[in-house]
Amino acid sequence: MKLHWSPRSPFVRKVMVCAHELGLAERLEKVRSTVAMSRPNAEVMKDNPLGKLPTLLLEDGSALYDSAVICEYLDGLARGKLFPKGAARWQALRWHALGDGMLDVLILWRNQRDQPVERQVREWLSGFALKIEKSFVTVERELPGLRKAPFGIGQIAIGCALGYIDFRFPDMDWRRRHPLVGAWFEEISQRPSMQATKPEQD
Amino acid sequence: MKLHWSPRSPFVRKVMVCAHELGLAERLEKVRSTVAMSRPNAEVMKDNPLGKLPTLLLEDGSALYDSAVICEYLDGLARGKLFPKGAARWQALRWHALGDGMLDVLILWRNQRDQPVERQVREWLSGFALKIEKSFVTVERELPGLRKAPFGIGQIAIGCALGYIDFRFPDMDWRRRHPLVGAWFEEISQRPSMQATKPEQD
Repeated sequence: MKLHWSPRSPFVRKVMVCAHELGLAERLEKVRSTVAMSRPNAEVMKDNPLGKLPTLLLEDGSALYDSAVICEYLDGLARGKLFPKGAARWQALRWHALGDGMLDVLILWRNQRDQPVERQVREWLSGFALKIEKSFVTVERELPGLRKAPFGIGQIAIGCALGYIDFRFPDMDWRRRHPLVGAWFEEISQRPSMQATKPEQD
Repeated sequence: MKLHWSPRSPFVRKVMVCAHELGLAERLEKVRSTVAMSRPNAEVMKDNPLGKLPTLLLEDGSALYDSAVICEYLDGLARGKLFPKGAARWQALRWHALGDGMLDVLILWRNQRDQPVERQVREWLSGFALKIEKSFVTVERELPGLRKAPFGIGQIAIGCALGYIDFRFPDMDWRRRHPLVGAWFEEISQRPSMQATKPEQD
């Protein structure tokens, strides 16, 4: 299987963490791809009209996206348990949506922040900051559940969001305000799947 | 169950179409909520730190988001078939991701378009237009599959994206370039679930 891949995309990282957890990492042929809101990637768009990473090409030539679909597909392929069944499923999927939603906010935030000041929308920037701070409060409240549940897609998504903050927002200083979240992130960061997928600086 | 709801959110519409298809619409108590990138909604953020619609409150007080999670939860509750099992699942989820991805692009596009011209980023606007046009090409290519498969989350998501274009981008004139997609959309729009959830003008 070919994966449109980048060492800097947090959504790609989520897929790669799943692949490592499931023993599938070697089966993914990584195709280095670069996308940006201002520079659509024609090669990626041949397989995914939205031009987004990650996009997975299956053996039969068909494409799978977005990251949530790819992660669940890999879990099914390996008969894994990253996506639990039954009542635990909804909690895991909500955590997954929280991590992905944090990433959506962070990516918009970065796109705004990197614009010239006169193009920045002040209300958007303050809205992004508020949503991320509220998300930290939610993660902190859910730490007992995150620790108790088997490591799966929920913890992976939130972990990738925290890793992206350290990568792209190194000055956010969130560990001071949320040390318990910091301690949990430190723990899960020791997993080989997280170590093998750390984002690389440009 | 309480649903943070708006008659204008396409992601809320997706949930409501599912609810109608599953016979659950009457079980959802709709709480009229307004969110915008420049105006975070404190009431919604009590239940969802990301401040997004839709957010569902279950009987036990816990919250579910995002729309994908809520739709699948409702499908499970009603023992429905909007999310197929087995091989058909990945095709349905890819269509779902295509519809949701189109909506993500359209919402960013509208946020940009509604800014003063000096704040608009020209490369973003042309990127949005390209991605939506490529998405139409993909939908057109997949029409045989969309028609053959049972009506489910894939058709619902793409249908809600097309409906959002008519609502917020009425000048796009996409039916001229993609008449076959227009004919399919006309067909699925006749379903009571789609009729009952048409977006309302401000």
